[in-house]
Amino acid sequence: MANRITKLFNIKYPIIQGGMIWCSGWELAAAVSEAGGLGLIGAGSMYPDVLRTHIQKAKKATDKPFGVNLPLLYPQIDEHIQIILDEKVPIVFTSAGNPKKYTSFLKEKGIVVVHVIANSKYALKCLEAGVDAIVAEGFEAGGHNGIEETTTLTLIPKIRELIDIPLIAAGGIGSGRAMLAAMSLGAEGVQVGSRFVASTESSAHENFKLEILNATDGDTKLTLKELVPVRLLRNQFLSAVEKAYEAHPSKEELASLLGKGRAKKGMFEGDLQQGELEIGQVSSTIHDILPAAEIIKNMIKEYNKTLESLSRI
Amino acid sequence: MANRITKLFNIKYPIIQGGMIWCSGWELAAAVSEAGGLGLIGAGSMYPDVLRTHIQKAKKATDKPFGVNLPLLYPQIDEHIQIILDEKVPIVFTSAGNPKKYTSFLKEKGIVVVHVIANSKYALKCLEAGVDAIVAEGFEAGGHNGIEETTTLTLIPKIRELIDIPLIAAGGIGSGRAMLAAMSLGAEGVQVGSRFVASTESSAHENFKLEILNATDGDTKLTLKELVPVRLLRNQFLSAVEKAYEAHPSKEELASLLGKGRAKKGMFEGDLQQGELEIGQVSSTIHDILPAAEIIKNMIKEYNKTLESLSRI
Repeated sequence: MANRITKLFNIKYPIIQGGMIWCSGWELAAAVSEAGGLGLIGAGSMYPDVLRTHIQKAKKATDKPFGVNLPLLYPQIDEHIQIILDEKVPIVFTSAGNPKKYTSFLKEKGIVVVHVIANSKYALKCLEAGVDAIVAEGFEAGGHNGIEETTTLTLIPKIRELIDIPLIAAGGIGSGRAMLAAMSLGAEGVQVGSRFVASTESSAHENFKLEILNATDGDTKLTLKELVPVRLLRNQFLSAVEKAYEAHPSKEELASLLGKGRAKKGMFEGDLQQGELEIGQVSSTIHDILPAAEIIKNMIKEYNKTLESLSRI
Repeated sequence: MANRITKLFNIKYPIIQGGMIWCSGWELAAAVSEAGGLGLIGAGSMYPDVLRTHIQKAKKATDKPFGVNLPLLYPQIDEHIQIILDEKVPIVFTSAGNPKKYTSFLKEKGIVVVHVIANSKYALKCLEAGVDAIVAEGFEAGGHNGIEETTTLTLIPKIRELIDIPLIAAGGIGSGRAMLAAMSLGAEGVQVGSRFVASTESSAHENFKLEILNATDGDTKLTLKELVPVRLLRNQFLSAVEKAYEAHPSKEELASLLGKGRAKKGMFEGDLQQGELEIGQVSSTIHDILPAAEIIKNMIKEYNKTLESLSRI
């Protein structure tokens, strides 16, 4: 299959690995790109020098294209961008901010720019900003998320009817069946996060990877909407947040409860009870930790098998 | 196409019209069944004598099978069940309650029983209760909904891996593309609600039908979770509910704010500002009011066209 997404990134399969804080370093990005997808280094949890090291290591590990995911709210973003230019990273996915801010600048430097959105208003902003493609991410996705709670199943067709640029679906996609569903809805590629957290090459702590395998439906929750909405796996910290809500906390009280470094504590250091464990609803159907290449191979196999099993009505 | 769902109900297309209070009387149910789907009379907003009239009129309007949707919390449920038996309705969809309560009794009378669930816990209860099929309904659905907020895209694969009885997907499905997505995920049929509210034969007030056409993404919200979670279209009543939440209302205060008859006022009497307008997220892509037969024809056409457009990877 060749489509606008595989051509845009020069990849074999239209599967993009989500750039995820604490989970997607160079090992995962390089493994995904080597296997024919598009790997992304998640810059949101990296100091500038750490990002530079990860980019350099990824370049050594694969000749195939990979990119960097850049949350636009990151405080040292200008340093990040300079490193991306220095290291000639060909693809940047921006998220959590206004696509107009950096798109023209990055595109002038020859970089392919993709922006992540969760509603049609921002899809139109992306169009005006001149991005090369859009990731539309639904409510079921792990980690930070939109406030409108629009699910992937209804978001993708809505964005598709509004815009005609290449469209990648995200949120709830970790299998060939879900990938086929996304393509049926009008997406031309998928971004996969949670499934790759539970991969051999993910930099998530082993405790967190194993905890994902225990998740069932209803075990994640979108919370802390007054700060930045985030979908978390149930644990003592999430219970503490829920208990705090009973007393109607102010935004400041929530920020104080969250504190600093909780995502690192949970996902990278493996503190399953006091850390934040960012994961999507699709965790309920993740049952093994596999090498990224195998995850991709399984998705493609299931995609083709499912497509063949469907008949006209 | 013949599959377990079309055979179970003896219908041509695996499209089931959701039983919806105030919107799905005999006209809609008969029109859907006549067009090759399965129509359902929504008993939840009908007094027993009204239900009897609707069943009798539907029988006159079509020789094809149709069913009744029976919310198990309805106060006069025993009278409803007696009418269903008297009138020899062949199919009952139960919802909002424990499937163990009536399934055996109805099945002994030769009735096909389907139960609506929103999580895997209740899917397993359905299995124990011996239902003939399950409707798994995601967070994006309009009206009453589960508390776990699991979306259709992640719920269907989860239920599919747990149970092997016929499975119908609901929530976010109003097009051939979304139907194909649901079938890709492992469903064998789809239940369509919102799209049929905006049909010629729906008993929704014309004001409400027209208001659906104005909806975009983010215009519905799942609210009143402390009572029964319900997804509503934005209007003055929803704004009043949101304002009330700022003062941290008790369950009793919320019940008092909701009052009685608000769903009827909005959906049946057409009071767009003070009524409850129950509709799903898929409303953002509904742009016309069409006869039910045309909705079904369009879905099938789009399903086949989309299936043909997809290629192996």
